[in-house]
Amino acid sequence: MRRASHAETHCSVARAIDVVGDPWTMLVVREAFFGTTRFEAFQRALDIPRATLSSRLDLLVERGVLERRPDAHRADRSTYHLTGKGRDLRPVLVTLMQWGDRWGGLDEPPVVLEEEGTGRRIQPVLVDADTGVPLAELPVRAVRRIRPTTPPAPG
Amino acid sequence: MRRASHAETHCSVARAIDVVGDPWTMLVVREAFFGTTRFEAFQRALDIPRATLSSRLDLLVERGVLERRPDAHRADRSTYHLTGKGRDLRPVLVTLMQWGDRWGGLDEPPVVLEEEGTGRRIQPVLVDADTGVPLAELPVRAVRRIRPTTPPAPG
Repeated sequence: MRRASHAETHCSVARAIDVVGDPWTMLVVREAFFGTTRFEAFQRALDIPRATLSSRLDLLVERGVLERRPDAHRADRSTYHLTGKGRDLRPVLVTLMQWGDRWGGLDEPPVVLEEEGTGRRIQPVLVDADTGVPLAELPVRAVRRIRPTTPPAPG
Repeated sequence: MRRASHAETHCSVARAIDVVGDPWTMLVVREAFFGTTRFEAFQRALDIPRATLSSRLDLLVERGVLERRPDAHRADRSTYHLTGKGRDLRPVLVTLMQWGDRWGGLDEPPVVLEEEGTGRRIQPVLVDADTGVPLAELPVRAVRRIRPTTPPAPG
């Protein structure tokens, strides 16, 4: 790869992918949304090699998606919790899940979203905040606002 | 890695990530949404090694996200176009972009969404389809509906 990281790219998708674009990373985040906090629990739920899990948890803490806290029950262990930046990934997980529900080849969605308390089924849809019209029904185009100026190559 | 692929996992997020979880793959999809169709144009826009681009385009065609068509202008070349499955990734890209806008460390969003024709700025938000209430304001929980039965380990 010419680039080890997309972090410096002038693109929000690339910068997001630089943090959560690794397959295991997003699955660790998914588990955190399910309420998993302990290393062993992540490991069991994901069947992920321990060294891989360790490096992904470190990365997510370093990038501010997870927060490490001392484990109240085991002084030598930590627990991992979503930060505000981490919780903000919910729309990404939800839209990924919906795409997987539709195109992943499963008969039924393995996970559904419910309103706590009522148990009402929630069907998330991406809409235009001003009009409430689903994005899928709007003629939308992506417009590049700022083009970074690239200095001419030396020589 | 114990698993080369998450395609068989009983989870829609894992199955989605199996198709688009690779960093370059999602950036190729982003370019396709910008209207890029030719190998050389993907290569220039992404500054991606040619072999990497080639393998990602092949993968996306194989998984049904892109469709390969003969290039009308160059008989020896192909062009690449989003399929219905590919266009369905828009909510994933949009939510990734919004997260990168917020947390990617850029001063201004490099790309905005506009309604074609009017140029009206579109601010996508994920809401509950029934009530129109933003998901962020609802107490939502993810409920596993089907637990795959794991056969007991031999011995």
